[in-house]
Order: sequence, then C-alpha cells, then structure tokens
Amino acid sequence: MATLQAEPMRDVAPAPNGVAACWPGRRHVLELDDFLPGEIVQVLDTAVTMKEVMSRPIKKVPTLRGKTIVTMFYEASTRTRVSFEVAAKILGADAVNVTASASSVTKGESLLDTVRTLQAIGADLVVMRHPQSGAPWVIASRVKMGVINGGDGWHAHPTQALLDLFTIRERLGRLAGVRVTIVGDVLHSRVARSALWGLTKLGAEVTLCGPPTLLPLDWYRGCALPWPVRVTERLDEALDGADVVMALRLQRERQSGGLIPSIREYSRIYGLTLERLALARPDALVMHPGPMNEGVEISPEVARGVQSVIEAQVTNGVAVRMALLYLLSGEAERLGDEG
Amino acid sequence: MATLQAEPMRDVAPAPNGVAACWPGRRHVLELDDFLPGEIVQVLDTAVTMKEVMSRPIKKVPTLRGKTIVTMFYEASTRTRVSFEVAAKILGADAVNVTASASSVTKGESLLDTVRTLQAIGADLVVMRHPQSGAPWVIASRVKMGVINGGDGWHAHPTQALLDLFTIRERLGRLAGVRVTIVGDVLHSRVARSALWGLTKLGAEVTLCGPPTLLPLDWYRGCALPWPVRVTERLDEALDGADVVMALRLQRERQSGGLIPSIREYSRIYGLTLERLALARPDALVMHPGPMNEGVEISPEVARGVQSVIEAQVTNGVAVRMALLYLLSGEAERLGDEG
Amino acid sequence: MATLQAEPMRDVAPAPNGVAACWPGRRHVLELDDFLPGEIVQVLDTAVTMKEVMSRPIKKVPTLRGKTIVTMFYEASTRTRVSFEVAAKILGADAVNVTASASSVTKGESLLDTVRTLQAIGADLVVMRHPQSGAPWVIASRVKMGVINGGDGWHAHPTQALLDLFTIRERLGRLAGVRVTIVGDVLHSRVARSALWGLTKLGAEVTLCGPPTLLPLDWYRGCALPWPVRVTERLDEALDGADVVMALRLQRERQSGGLIPSIREYSRIYGLTLERLALARPDALVMHPGPMNEGVEISPEVARGVQSVIEAQVTNGVAVRMALLYLLSGEAERLGDEG
Repeated sequence: MATLQAEPMRDVAPAPNGVAACWPGRRHVLELDDFLPGEIVQVLDTAVTMKEVMSRPIKKVPTLRGKTIVTMFYEASTRTRVSFEVAAKILGADAVNVTASASSVTKGESLLDTVRTLQAIGADLVVMRHPQSGAPWVIASRVKMGVINGGDGWHAHPTQALLDLFTIRERLGRLAGVRVTIVGDVLHSRVARSALWGLTKLGAEVTLCGPPTLLPLDWYRGCALPWPVRVTERLDEALDGADVVMALRLQRERQSGGLIPSIREYSRIYGLTLERLALARPDALVMHPGPMNEGVEISPEVARGVQSVIEAQVTNGVAVRMALLYLLSGEAERLGDEG
Repeated sequence: MATLQAEPMRDVAPAPNGVAACWPGRRHVLELDDFLPGEIVQVLDTAVTMKEVMSRPIKKVPTLRGKTIVTMFYEASTRTRVSFEVAAKILGADAVNVTASASSVTKGESLLDTVRTLQAIGADLVVMRHPQSGAPWVIASRVKMGVINGGDGWHAHPTQALLDLFTIRERLGRLAGVRVTIVGDVLHSRVARSALWGLTKLGAEVTLCGPPTLLPLDWYRGCALPWPVRVTERLDEALDGADVVMALRLQRERQSGGLIPSIREYSRIYGLTLERLALARPDALVMHPGPMNEGVEISPEVARGVQSVIEAQVTNGVAVRMALLYLLSGEAERLGDEG
Repeated sequence: MATLQAEPMRDVAPAPNGVAACWPGRRHVLELDDFLPGEIVQVLDTAVTMKEVMSRPIKKVPTLRGKTIVTMFYEASTRTRVSFEVAAKILGADAVNVTASASSVTKGESLLDTVRTLQAIGADLVVMRHPQSGAPWVIASRVKMGVINGGDGWHAHPTQALLDLFTIRERLGRLAGVRVTIVGDVLHSRVARSALWGLTKLGAEVTLCGPPTLLPLDWYRGCALPWPVRVTERLDEALDGADVVMALRLQRERQSGGLIPSIREYSRIYGLTLERLALARPDALVMHPGPMNEGVEISPEVARGVQSVIEAQVTNGVAVRMALLYLLSGEAERLGDEG
C-alpha cells in the first residue's frame, strides 16, 4: 500500500441553518442534485409524520387509496423493492411488481415501451432500478407520470440518501455542521454519490475516505457541490472528530479488477473496527447502506454495537419512501390535470 | 418478392346493426368464436362504465371485494398480466400472481394440478397465458371456476380483441360496416385470429394483408366465420378505404424460419409509413397490439402520430378486463351455487 | 424385493381424550414437536371459524388490517405460498412475496440479513421455505418477529400436518384412536415427519409403510414421540383396519439413487389402488399432500374417488393458515410490546 499517498485535507465552507420546508411542484425523484434544500427538509418533515403512522397499532391509512404504484426492478433487490411496496401499502395504494430479466435490459426502447404501457394502464408512479446509469432520466423525460429512481448503475440512489439524512437528523437533531465520514468504495457507490449531494446541501461536512483507486477525484472536482468535501486516503485522519461514520459495501469484484490488492489487505486498512471507531466522537453514529460484508468493511462488533443505527436506517427507509409517494402523488395529480 | 402473387379480392356480406346486449350465463372467456354478438356488446357496454370508474379521482370500488383473481402466466408478459392485476385491484378484488418456468410447461397434468389447487384454495377466477394452443380449454373443461384466456400459443387472445373492438367503437361510434385492415404476420398472430372473430361477429369488414407465407389461408377458409374476410398480399389494395389499420408485430424468428426474405425487405413492402397510411381514409385509426418494432412493421411517425390510438388501446384494455372480471364473477357465483 | 423383510408390528399406547384448547404465548411455528396437544387443538378450533369466514359471500375480514405478512420461498412452491398469501389477504393483511434464486441459498448470513431487513421494514410475520433443514430455527432464534416454517428440507412441514389433522377431525369427528397409515417415501418426507408429531400428540395410531430403504427407522426410534408408531414394509398389513390412508409423493430421483428398484416395481408393491384401498375400513379417508404422481403412488381412481379428501386438504390448508396467522399475530404483538 506504499502507493497510497495521502492528499492534504481540504477546507470546508460554513454550513446553512434554518432551511424552510417547501415542495414547489416536483414530479420525479431522480437525484438530489436538483433538490432545493427546502425540498429535502420537506421530505424529512413529512417522513416524521409517516414514521408515526408506522408505529400505530394498525399501520394503515387510506391516503393513497386508488393510486397504483409500480415497482420496476431490473436488478435484484429485496430491501429497496420491499421497502417501497410496504410504503405504498401502508398508505393504502396498490403496489404492482414488475421484474425484468437481464436479457431485456439492453433493449433501451423496450424499457421505454414498458413504462409507457404502465402509464397507459393507469400507473400513477413508477419506482425503477436499472443497471444503466441515467435510465430513469430518459424515462422521466418521456412520460407524464412520476418516476422515482430506486438506484441506477453506479450513479444515484436518492431515496437511500434521504433515509440517511433522516436518520442523522433524527438522532443528532440537525444536519448543518454534522461531520460525516464515508469510508470505502466511493468510486462505484451510488449511495455515496447521492448522500454527498444531500448532506452538503443541508450543510453537513463530508469527508470521503478510501484507497485512491476507489475515490472519484475527477467527479467531485468537476461537480458544483454546494460545499467542498474533504478527501483522504488515511482512515485515522478521516475519523478524527466524525459525528457519523458511514461504511460502504465492498464488491468482491474490486479485487479481481485490480483496484485493491486483496480483500484481507483492504479490510486491514479500511475495515471499521471498534478500535478505529474510537477515533471518532464518543457517540458517533455508525451507518451502512446494506447488505453488509461483516468482517470486510465493518466488524460484527461495530455493525451490531450500541452506536450502530443500521437497522434504524432500514425502518426509516419506509418512512422516507412513504413521504415521497405522498408528496409526488399530490404533484402528479395536480400536474396531470394541467397536461 | 416476385413469388408474392396477389389473390383476387373477395366479396363481403352486409353487416348487422342494433345488436342487443346480453350475458346469458357464461363462465369462461376462451375465444370469441362462441360469443353471441350480444355478449360482446354487453362486455363493451360494461367497459364503458368501467372506464368511467378509471377516470375517478379515487379509482377504486368494492365491487369484487373478497374475490380472488389469479393470474397464471406461463409466458413472459408485462402488459397483459399487469392490466389484469390492475383491473382486479380497481374492483377491490385480491390479485395473486403465479408465474411458471418454462420447464414445467411440458407437464400438462401439472398444469391441471396447479389450477385445481388454486380452485381448492378459493380462487374465483384464473387468467392464464400458456404457450400451448388449447391449454385454457383443457383447463376450463375440468374446473368449476371461471377461466380467462390471456393468450394461448398462436391460437387466441380474446381480451385483446375485445379491447380492439372497444377502441374502434369508442372512436368511430360503431362497428358494423367499419372497414378494418390487419397487416402483417397474420398466420402466427393470436391477436389477428381473435380480432377476426370479434370484428366479423359485429359486422365489421375485415381485410387481411401480408406475404402469402404469413397468411393462414387454410384456416379461415375452413372456418365458419359469420362473414367472409378479404385477403390480399397487396398492401395498397388492402389500405384503400380502410377505417382502421391494425399493424401486427413481426417476430424476428420469421426471417430465420425462411418465411420472409429479410426484415428490411419485409419492412419495405409491408411497413406502415405515413405515405402508405395516406391510402386509407383520412382519419383512419392506427392500431397495434404491442409491443411494437418501430421501423419494422410501423414507422415511429405513424406509431406516435395523430391517428394512432395505440396508447388508448392499452388503457381500454384495463376497462375491458374489469368488465370481464365483473361479468364472470357474477356468473361464477350463480353457477357455483347450483353446482 | 426379496430383501424386504417385514419387521414385526409394534404395540400402540392408548390415546388421549378431551384435550383442552390453549395458546400459551407462542411466537413461531417451526415444527409440531414442541406443541402442547392443547395448542394444536386451539389451532384446529380456530380454523373452524376461519373456514366459516371462507364460505361467506364476501370472504374478507379486517382482522389483520395493517399487518404485513412476508412469504419468503427459497424453493419453488405454488400451493403453499399461494395458500398463505390468500389466507393473509382474507384476513385483511398485506402480503409481500420474496422469492430467492438458488444461488443465494448457500449464503446463510445473507438469509439472516434478508430476514432482519424485512423485520426492520416492519414485517409482522415471515413464512419461509428453505431447502436447508433447520434454517427456520436459526432465523427464529435471531429475530423478534414471528416465523412460520413453510417446509425446510426433508425436515418439517408443520402447517401441512395441521391441515391433515384438521381434515381428519372434520371428517371423522376425532383424532384420538384414529388409525392412520402413511405409505411411501417416509424417509425423505417432511410431511410424514410433521404429521407423525401431530397425529401421535393427539392420540392417533400411526402406521408407517414403505420399503426399508425409505423408512427412517433410526429417526423414530431415537425420537421422544408421545406414542410409538408401527412400522411395516407390508402394505396389506399396514392397511388392515386403517381409518385414514395417506399416500406420499415419490420423488423420481429415488430410483436413480438406488433406493427403489424401479418406479414400476415400486408402484406395483406400494401404489394405492382400489383393490388395496378395500383392505382398509370401508369409509377410510384417502389423503395426499400433493402434488400427486397419479399412477405411481396412487391410482387416478383412488385419487378422485369418493373416499378421497385430497381437494378438501387444500381448502383446509387456507383455514389452518388463517388460524396460525391470527393466533401468532396476537402473540407477536403482545410479546413485541414487552421486548
């Protein structure tokens, strides 16, 4: 690992405070880059109400009764798909699942044809996961109904970022000024990319950490993020003073691709252990988007320790998705009346 | 294409008028050949009501609450399966999906066993798609619950035909005397076969057009259709005076099977372009059962042009399927009481 | 078959009577071995109520409204999965299906991770089928929500056993003293194993019959069953005086595995025909867990004969599963409040 030279830490701009909630007429959720800070706050505030609904003895409301939410997943996913399905059903909507084999993925036109068919059938919203980065944008530009990006390639995963924001705000009471360290394969992580947009828009201070081969230096340099992020390959430096530590899943293909010397070596240098966690703030939150490779990017003791909010992230994911379905359904209806 | 000799056009019998709606106790929808004209009218009239339900702000009624509709698709299908699922849910029924791998398809007894199990579990209606022609008849003859054919092999696709009839009647105000030209691979098209039954029963004048290798001359000659249809391999002749032009999907296997010289050649002679469409009536409707091969059997300009009702077909499919679920559920219940 | 020497029949202990219904706070249904007889009676009594609900014109109640039942099937199954899904929906619960490819089966941790995710999403109960014997126990020991075993490897299938008990009690009015003969591949049958626990706990007298290569002699000898069972390889002896004859499905792999000489030979000696059935009591019930190999372990005449209750078993399966979902949901809620 001698080639991994640390870059100097960069400065962080001051963080905003008191952003007011707003929802100015959005129809799609594709990535957080085009969200106003107030829109994100609106989602989080709405999700607080939704989490209260989830805690009721009978967790069911008729809010979206008669709405049809389609989940269209072109990549295997249990957690995100089921999270949306449960969110839709709690709100009284009908959820329809469409899964697609990998073989039909390459036919871009077929994807658009499928979505147009779903729209003509009467779907109100489509939640899509697709291996091709940008696919949800293509679809959203050609249909009238609302589109939610449930993850596209290495690109974006905005609903995961929103649940991360919700969880941090719920636990720490704020996002502005919170110091969040994201560790691991940042380069290939749609989770990290979307979290970066969301966190910086609400004034959190983000540090990215990983081996240089897994850091997207060019991307974030060319990117008009509201605030700069710090980048370092030294985990000790990255953890120092962190309020939140988010470990990313390491894909095992990274080793065969030559991006890391070995899983064991990676784990030795970047694995989040109890000793390493002690470098962060005493009550720092531990997060992970799941599914975890326990013993690789995170030790079992940390994953299930008192500082872990990993399970809460999953629960909050339902609340955040309920909020999005609710907010978008209202907009889709209003916009639909005009069009 | 020198071998494609045009046959002479055949005469068409006069069309009926003022068929009265009726529903005399039908339990299954397998093919339109055994439908009385009045039954078809009943379905179309009921679908008008259902389409009004679909347009409500809350598109949900409790009509079929407590009913269980099973969709059992042994062939890949998004559009038809989802259409039935949405239709069932709008009517308040529970929809249960059963998909089957191709491997279990050959076991005919296993199919019957599965359906009998579904019946014993309490399913009220089963919608089935199966690659073997005739499979729904075998099933319907051995179970008490209602069976809807969602497409069997090359044989029949009656709900597609009903949505075609609905769309034509909705746009043109009538079916009797309407001149419908069906272009393409008529031989392998269950859509064309079922449409032919439905259209001729309600007095539409049908012209089939395609290369001789893709025209089922023997079938329709031996068939007791209420009215003769015209057959021609010359598209110009077929389009002349048409009120409706229905393009059929060309399966790419037809080329490797030697039935057409090449996709390009086929498209050049039978592709529906704006120039060709101008040969039909000025406001002729353009239909396609989907999914389309744009640029092959239909040009993108025609597919998305002002005369296209292709998207409306998909929407109307839900209304027609709601009508069938509604009508059959009543019958199944009444017949069930007797048996 | 000269090597198949009959063992002497063993004695049977007297059967209990008048077991009182009880449900002392159970959260999982993994196998019937840890059920008190009164718990089983409670399930059967509750299922009587549920069967009445199923017979209503509108078979839908709001009892479990707001509950989320997840079916997680890692083996192909139509009958059991759909039975649970329909049971959940009749009770007003939301049913969510998760199917898994065989490739992810070997990752034990992944299974636990998936279930923990489902729990965090808000699932109230998970119904799981898994090819590895014991998998549901591992899961149940690590989660708070209720777990129902929908079949694990060769090990257990308790809900099938409960529907068998329900069907016998419904038809014969009692279980104590009823003579049940189970014929076939007992060794590999999770159905037989679970039925054995349930039947003997409620005082039925069980006889197992099959070729020695398919009889689990070691298992039941080492097993603390409440009452001994009789074992014989002679079908005539096993059928004599039987009130119930349960034929088991013969997997065709048993022949290639060398456990039976041939399917034809097996069928000749152990197939349940009308002649053989005449050796049992005149009105003996014929049962089969399905799917049947008609002509192998059971003849078509017997399978569809007047003594067959095979279809009733399937219907009763929904009632029994409704009872379990109902009973466990109450407990899960109460226990959840404490934990």
